[in-house]
Amino acid sequence: MSSPIEKAIEHARANRDQYLAGYHDLLRIPSVSTDPAYKADLERCADWIVAEMTRIGLKNCRKMPTDGHSMIYGEWLEAGDDKPTVLVYSHYDVQPVDPLDLWQTPPFEPTVRDGKLYARGSSDNKNGVWGNLKTFESILATEGRLPVNVKVLFEGEEETASPSAAPFVNANRELLRADALMMSDSGFDPDNPVIGYTARGIISAEVVVRGPDHDLHSGGYGGVVHNPLHMVGKIIGSFHDEAGRVQIPDYYDQVGQLDDDELAQMMATYKITGPEYEAKSGVEHFWGESIASIPERATALPTLDVNGITGGYQGPGMKTVIPSETSFKVTMRLVADQDPAAIAQLFTDYVQGFACDTMSVEVNILDTAWPVLMAEDGPSLEAAQRAFEAIIGRRARRIRIGGSIPILGMFQRELAIPITPLGFGSGENIHSPNEYLNLDHFFLSIEKAIHCYYYLAETMG
Amino acid sequence: MSSPIEKAIEHARANRDQYLAGYHDLLRIPSVSTDPAYKADLERCADWIVAEMTRIGLKNCRKMPTDGHSMIYGEWLEAGDDKPTVLVYSHYDVQPVDPLDLWQTPPFEPTVRDGKLYARGSSDNKNGVWGNLKTFESILATEGRLPVNVKVLFEGEEETASPSAAPFVNANRELLRADALMMSDSGFDPDNPVIGYTARGIISAEVVVRGPDHDLHSGGYGGVVHNPLHMVGKIIGSFHDEAGRVQIPDYYDQVGQLDDDELAQMMATYKITGPEYEAKSGVEHFWGESIASIPERATALPTLDVNGITGGYQGPGMKTVIPSETSFKVTMRLVADQDPAAIAQLFTDYVQGFACDTMSVEVNILDTAWPVLMAEDGPSLEAAQRAFEAIIGRRARRIRIGGSIPILGMFQRELAIPITPLGFGSGENIHSPNEYLNLDHFFLSIEKAIHCYYYLAETMG
Repeated sequence: MSSPIEKAIEHARANRDQYLAGYHDLLRIPSVSTDPAYKADLERCADWIVAEMTRIGLKNCRKMPTDGHSMIYGEWLEAGDDKPTVLVYSHYDVQPVDPLDLWQTPPFEPTVRDGKLYARGSSDNKNGVWGNLKTFESILATEGRLPVNVKVLFEGEEETASPSAAPFVNANRELLRADALMMSDSGFDPDNPVIGYTARGIISAEVVVRGPDHDLHSGGYGGVVHNPLHMVGKIIGSFHDEAGRVQIPDYYDQVGQLDDDELAQMMATYKITGPEYEAKSGVEHFWGESIASIPERATALPTLDVNGITGGYQGPGMKTVIPSETSFKVTMRLVADQDPAAIAQLFTDYVQGFACDTMSVEVNILDTAWPVLMAEDGPSLEAAQRAFEAIIGRRARRIRIGGSIPILGMFQRELAIPITPLGFGSGENIHSPNEYLNLDHFFLSIEKAIHCYYYLAETMG
Repeated sequence: MSSPIEKAIEHARANRDQYLAGYHDLLRIPSVSTDPAYKADLERCADWIVAEMTRIGLKNCRKMPTDGHSMIYGEWLEAGDDKPTVLVYSHYDVQPVDPLDLWQTPPFEPTVRDGKLYARGSSDNKNGVWGNLKTFESILATEGRLPVNVKVLFEGEEETASPSAAPFVNANRELLRADALMMSDSGFDPDNPVIGYTARGIISAEVVVRGPDHDLHSGGYGGVVHNPLHMVGKIIGSFHDEAGRVQIPDYYDQVGQLDDDELAQMMATYKITGPEYEAKSGVEHFWGESIASIPERATALPTLDVNGITGGYQGPGMKTVIPSETSFKVTMRLVADQDPAAIAQLFTDYVQGFACDTMSVEVNILDTAWPVLMAEDGPSLEAAQRAFEAIIGRRARRIRIGGSIPILGMFQRELAIPITPLGFGSGENIHSPNEYLNLDHFFLSIEKAIHCYYYLAETMG
């Protein structure tokens, strides 16, 4: 006679086509959080998810308003007082899709090619939403109950650095109280089993450079009027030295050195190395080698990247203009003890130092988030590792993650609970055209999650 | 009894409202030459002008096809063999209108406020087209004949550096043969009477910087992958020193020094000086003072201006992307003996020098044109000066012009005729939002042109 885990896995396998069809429906909703034009789609997406959560048997499922996009909450709390309560986190918003013309198939028309599901959000991070719900559905449909108490929180602002997170968590501390947080904004690749233990912090900023109060003709004013586009070049051109090190004074003061053990572990496990990975990443060569190893640069050192520049004439052909103003967007990734507010101030002071009598320079800090250290050991991590063993016969290696999950710092500070990654499938081209999810890995990760939730009942019991 | 000049002027004054209404119709046609989306509008504009030329009594009026937008030709050759033949040049294409939201009234809905006619092209350079046609109409309607033989050439590609000019002039050398060229891509301000004697050459170029072969997530790849936006900053940031001098090696080799007489004359006559003109230009302070005086920098020295940068995410909010590629547009203004091909090569070599193993750099030279020296003296200039005397009681001062009129180099080299500016009205915000034409100056310049064409019959007779 089958165990509950086996029955749930059988159910998931038998319903694979149906689970996939539902995922297509979810991916069709263009929940681009950063662009106000999609506001209604975000709410439609949240409504759709709430309905699905209710349908599979979660309780008290609802949208919870914020100043931005709604949070989604649902729960199943009938496992008993002796069972742990697990808070599950994922996000239903997605990145913008431009440049649209580089997509082989439209970003919101999910398409399967060679076992890969192509769609915006397929891998970041609607798979976390859908994978958890299908895990719960598989268990509830076969057992009628979950092995642990579950609180589900799906966010709609992760891709905009979670501006509503702090007030929301603050106002809902009791509702969100739990013994562990399973963080499903991550992946699962059976060929490269890893569990992250850090996430970098982030600062996003916009810089506006203003010169003449209206656009001028570069024939009449070239050489006489200071061109804001030239100032943008001076500023951006000064950010890094030739090696790639950020030149803002004191930028690295709180970074520190990794100890030898961690460095050795990192070099042994990190996957961004060598020509093969360069080819996969679409680059001729990686950059910044004289500063530190690739895994250190990608995960354990701060960065500063310009993400966009807008200014002057951008249409076809030419226009002989000196634009009145121009702007650019920047994100900085933070590590270790870097305080986002302090680094934001360093950046602001540095950039405003370029202001002069011909040019004003305005710095707007859009969002900030602290770097995060996740559970290094403990019962929830042990449950996750046992699930890896059950599915692929070995434990995951621990790695640092280069990206940022802004709400985690909030959870860590406000709720004081251990955080463990629980990822659903592997993919590529996150934040890029042709984002995809490997479907076999996705369905395998549902089986792993079924194991994991049952193990949580044991390790945390 | 009135003279022919007086009768023509009376006719122009009596028909001012009608002339203005016709100009509105011309300005309503969005003849933006640089943007392929307006191709049909350019042809419609040309057809409309040909019909008007025919209506007022010019002969053999027609569109002449080129590889780009059509040239417009018309003539009136019945003045007699003893009379000079004058080639009249202006252009009917206009600059793009963006940023559209800065226009107080729509750019292609001509609007009069405080005696100023606001519309794209009102001052650059449909006033040259319309002013000449209304001059000829005023004379033909009263005398039935023009005092000189006239060939009219209106171009549709001036704002894109006249790419079809060379083959067109080459193929139509006989048709265009004339004793003088009256160049109506200039202005007339009775309070500041000037006649240009130079125009700067121009090179327009686009630079494309390419890194990874697809957009990447700056969380995963920041610090590991070289960001093309950073390279654009390095390149643009290197173009000028702090004083504003272009840093491309050998850039100034052919520039030379102005002689003391010309410099003194320039300082005495040039109007871009002082706080009052800074305020009018919308700047806090002019730029580059340590290099040379304002008039020298604006007209007698070469420049390099970035006119637009495009790259990465440009929508609202943020997107944590390292873009695969980015590009920017540049124009350089040339003076004296600067050979556009040689300077274009200096620029290309310099910019391509930034290519490295993490980044490719492509330079596309879009258009080039030689600097031009116009008639310093001679009968056609004398006629123009006498027209100034007749209208405002004094001669115009001679000035260098900072802008470029690419087709003039072609005329000068291919047709070997003296070039004299004949401008129609004054305005501001050329190539910018809220371009306008001072209507009183425009109508006064028609009276001046009536004088000028009669004087040409005498001075060149």
